[in-house]
Amino acid sequence: MAIADTSEITLAELQLSGRNHSIPLEALRHDITPIGLHYLLTHFDIPEVDADTWQLEVGGLVEKQLTLSLADLQARPPLTMPVTLECAGNGRALIEPRPMSQPWLQGAVGTAEWTGTPLAPLLEEAGVAAEAKEIVFSGLDRGIQGDSEHAYERSLPVAEAMRDEILLAWAINGQPLPPQHGFPLRLIVPGWYGMTHVKWLRSIAAVAEAFTGWQQDVAYHVRESEDEQGEPVTRIKPRSLMVPPGIPEFLSRTRFLEPGPCEVEGRAWSGRAPISRVEFSDDGGETWADAKLGEPVGEFAWRGWSYGWNAAPGEYELCCRATDEAGSVQPLAPEWNWDGVCNNAVQRVQVVVRAAE
Amino acid sequence: MAIADTSEITLAELQLSGRNHSIPLEALRHDITPIGLHYLLTHFDIPEVDADTWQLEVGGLVEKQLTLSLADLQARPPLTMPVTLECAGNGRALIEPRPMSQPWLQGAVGTAEWTGTPLAPLLEEAGVAAEAKEIVFSGLDRGIQGDSEHAYERSLPVAEAMRDEILLAWAINGQPLPPQHGFPLRLIVPGWYGMTHVKWLRSIAAVAEAFTGWQQDVAYHVRESEDEQGEPVTRIKPRSLMVPPGIPEFLSRTRFLEPGPCEVEGRAWSGRAPISRVEFSDDGGETWADAKLGEPVGEFAWRGWSYGWNAAPGEYELCCRATDEAGSVQPLAPEWNWDGVCNNAVQRVQVVVRAAE
Repeated sequence: MAIADTSEITLAELQLSGRNHSIPLEALRHDITPIGLHYLLTHFDIPEVDADTWQLEVGGLVEKQLTLSLADLQARPPLTMPVTLECAGNGRALIEPRPMSQPWLQGAVGTAEWTGTPLAPLLEEAGVAAEAKEIVFSGLDRGIQGDSEHAYERSLPVAEAMRDEILLAWAINGQPLPPQHGFPLRLIVPGWYGMTHVKWLRSIAAVAEAFTGWQQDVAYHVRESEDEQGEPVTRIKPRSLMVPPGIPEFLSRTRFLEPGPCEVEGRAWSGRAPISRVEFSDDGGETWADAKLGEPVGEFAWRGWSYGWNAAPGEYELCCRATDEAGSVQPLAPEWNWDGVCNNAVQRVQVVVRAAE
Repeated sequence: MAIADTSEITLAELQLSGRNHSIPLEALRHDITPIGLHYLLTHFDIPEVDADTWQLEVGGLVEKQLTLSLADLQARPPLTMPVTLECAGNGRALIEPRPMSQPWLQGAVGTAEWTGTPLAPLLEEAGVAAEAKEIVFSGLDRGIQGDSEHAYERSLPVAEAMRDEILLAWAINGQPLPPQHGFPLRLIVPGWYGMTHVKWLRSIAAVAEAFTGWQQDVAYHVRESEDEQGEPVTRIKPRSLMVPPGIPEFLSRTRFLEPGPCEVEGRAWSGRAPISRVEFSDDGGETWADAKLGEPVGEFAWRGWSYGWNAAPGEYELCCRATDEAGSVQPLAPEWNWDGVCNNAVQRVQVVVRAAE
């Protein structure tokens, strides 16, 4: 990671931005994000996997090593759950100076219905040894990052990996995983940022020491400089986003609308505690009013909100901010850190309300 | 449209790049691009459409106006066809100085299997008047571009609209269109650049004069300056792309591979004539060798190619270039024009072949 010495985006960042897909904000209208609108981050390349020969290895410090085909996994008890996933780097491109990596604005989020089988019973069957400290999840995707060649791998503490809601998922929105979402099998860790949900799983291993793979030990930390270890990124901080009202100007995406009542709608989520409040502002965050909360789409998924805005002619900066039951609230401005992670600053949408005809 | 006064990408372009999705080049390996990996360009917002109340109007200079529900359309003879779609702006971000719009590198392409009903019999049923010159296709998407507020609309000459292969499509890859691909109905015009394939169709109208809507008359022209009318963009120029071999470095996307035989694979297509040749270069286009051509995926779809490259240790710039039966060949460098359209310059992939161990 390095810090950009320009306010403008480099060609390398543009390359990443083309490969890695944001949700277009109007797609927040769907409770469940359709395939192709959910955000996507692929560190390396999407691997080519033959499901007929693919196997999952469960090993390391276990009593009994397991080798499972996709059919073996699909014969286990299935569970379907809506889960909101968000990239830890969401909002990175709005941090100044800008950390050089995937330049997300605010669309690195989506909510899908994932189907799989719970991980805990599988680990119980394998018999994780008492001395095991973490479970390491390894993907088939391989590349170079931070001068280190590695497969994409992340770990979880054993207690966290044993939580009921953690899934080995083979389907999204009722369909087999498409290649980009981790075909044939991926990890789903509800509540955690996206880097945890390892795609294209090939092995799961219990280990006695804290895992020191690059994506675990170097990347995904909140830190002030490259020399510092910092705090690991874990659960999703509260965030809210609105569907920008009105119609857009193509290049600037400034919104134009007619004067009158305008129902502004959006979504809010947190991986740390349920959302307890969403507020709306039409003056760039100077003053706030409570939005109306909808029902959560699921225990680990976003909830809708709406605000009946009376749009009078003029120019506005619309904002929304979420608070969760842990009392955490979105900041007005990004909080800088070296990796550009966990920036949950409020969204700002430029709007022009036209004069009445 | 304006020309960027910087070699770096602006925040407005980054916004577009997040909304509009490229195909990750490794996905060229699929004959039919999976949903979510096909390129996407949405000028304005994806509209929300209720298929139960949605209707298609067929009118203008016709003997009999038609109003059709989705069920009416789906009761007509269906046709399924693989078609390669490419955005006319593909390659825009590699043109210097850079026209300011969606900053595509080279991934604005995809091949899907579209299912719909042919347009010509529907127009025959409506009875297009002899004085009609063009057929105008109007979408439900609305916004502002070039200081003009408009719904997205494009036209085709009557003779072109009557071609057998032109479809009103309601399905992609065997599934109902997802919102981003034009739900519930879109136009498919095999061979033409993407701007022609109007999404979220609401009406089709026969008109007596050349249509002067903004997206037809102002946008999508090859011209040297803003004052010039220029030549309208129509059919896709030949292009080839390779799946970058080896593994990537995360930020630069430079490829690393081991020495030895390496089967480089890719796709080639043209909307003007069948592809007759694909060549491969490992020295930045100084010298070329013929690649082996695979079968076309369909009459209007890309064909695979491969080249058995012997990768010796060193640094390379790999290129590929396609020629079609009309004798058109990809240029080595982009050809500048004001809109940044139809840039089919050869792809360049930076590769490091490591020393043998």
